[in-house]
Amino acid sequence: MIRGVLLDLSGVLYVGIEPLPGAHAAMQRLSESGLPVRYITNTTRKTSATILKQLAAMQFNVKPHELFTAPLAAKDYLNRNQLVPYLLIHPGLEPEFADMERSAGINAILVGDAGDGFTYGKMNEAFRHLRDGAEFLALGINRYFKDGDQFSLDAGPFVRALEYATDKQAVVIGKPAVEFYISAVNSINCRPEETIMVGDDVESDVLGAAHAGLYGMLVRTGKYCEGDENRLVGHTQCVNDIAEAVEEILKMSG
Amino acid sequence: MIRGVLLDLSGVLYVGIEPLPGAHAAMQRLSESGLPVRYITNTTRKTSATILKQLAAMQFNVKPHELFTAPLAAKDYLNRNQLVPYLLIHPGLEPEFADMERSAGINAILVGDAGDGFTYGKMNEAFRHLRDGAEFLALGINRYFKDGDQFSLDAGPFVRALEYATDKQAVVIGKPAVEFYISAVNSINCRPEETIMVGDDVESDVLGAAHAGLYGMLVRTGKYCEGDENRLVGHTQCVNDIAEAVEEILKMSG
Repeated sequence: MIRGVLLDLSGVLYVGIEPLPGAHAAMQRLSESGLPVRYITNTTRKTSATILKQLAAMQFNVKPHELFTAPLAAKDYLNRNQLVPYLLIHPGLEPEFADMERSAGINAILVGDAGDGFTYGKMNEAFRHLRDGAEFLALGINRYFKDGDQFSLDAGPFVRALEYATDKQAVVIGKPAVEFYISAVNSINCRPEETIMVGDDVESDVLGAAHAGLYGMLVRTGKYCEGDENRLVGHTQCVNDIAEAVEEILKMSG
Repeated sequence: MIRGVLLDLSGVLYVGIEPLPGAHAAMQRLSESGLPVRYITNTTRKTSATILKQLAAMQFNVKPHELFTAPLAAKDYLNRNQLVPYLLIHPGLEPEFADMERSAGINAILVGDAGDGFTYGKMNEAFRHLRDGAEFLALGINRYFKDGDQFSLDAGPFVRALEYATDKQAVVIGKPAVEFYISAVNSINCRPEETIMVGDDVESDVLGAAHAGLYGMLVRTGKYCEGDENRLVGHTQCVNDIAEAVEEILKMSG
């Protein structure tokens, strides 16, 4: 019996800035069902405020407390542990951490897909903080991503670089970390087995969620590639799109 | 019975451009012993010509054939295998490869401690060549080095980053590659077990040499950190500095 829903954003509700066919009607049905929803994303190149603005511009009505991003989870982790971070993140994300940034008392580093921010100087600064005992947090460990018509390096390789340099292991915040899924599930007062996660990334979204004890649902939109459904194991299934996903979820919620 | 000597340079004979106390006298004694010597360095921020000039300026008398560097070994490897490299190396080393550099037909990448050359753009270019099938060479996989009064990232972390991104493993030229130590030992017509390697890097110099079958000797100068001697295993020992190292070597050579 499903009592809560986690949804990936890009590739599920829209691609680029274009809503996917049937997405609005599906979201309307889901909203009317009264099932609690969280929008779960690793997007680390923009703030949650920017994401909410872009969702609104595409006519998706998402409330701030429904957005569950890796950077917000990282902020929460930093606050709970009284950590002051050195940030190796994308300029587009920096405003999210503006209230946390200090030049003194740094006792953590946070690595995201910083893009051109991955300079030798900044890598060295992060490295030296780690040597001085700073905690090591990473917003995901993806290897690379599709960047226009080519592939570019994501945060993962640079996280591995600092791990190798310091012999420390990063705490990964964001999908597919089990803790990240559990936090999201807790925020809607559900148990993992009562919660479904819908996404277009077979590994990070669907198998990641299943690994955390949730039900995983793969859509054939966004970054889905033919044959991805053959990699599904455990409590998972594959549907065509968000419209079919919501239809299935409503059945499963009795 | 020791019959040949390999010496690391920076941190053993000098730090920065300052000869270490007792280094000249020790080199004089070693020279008078008649033991063949090779200077083994992964220094990848300057050409061999520059290294020789700087050694001479510090009054160290090293002949060209006594210098055994990772870049020279890499050039040899590239030539033997007809490889055209994309270079991710320090500007100071570029002249060493000036005769090999081409913009077309690239079928290898060569990573050294490029320093500020480790930009996101260049890391991506190297990454894309590797995805296109280029061979992957690295001038060492050291984690970090002493850079003035602090530590800076060496080539190793960036090599690991590209390995993680591409699932390919780099061929490491230079310390601590077994092949590199064996080439150096061969060049003085010794067997590994008759040869001693002296260095300030417990992993790359001392354990690396021991792994190749040599006797490894750690000095407490340069990048040495308190407690490094506790990591020694196998045919190794720790001495205070190059003066004590030469004294021990002369005893061990009968």
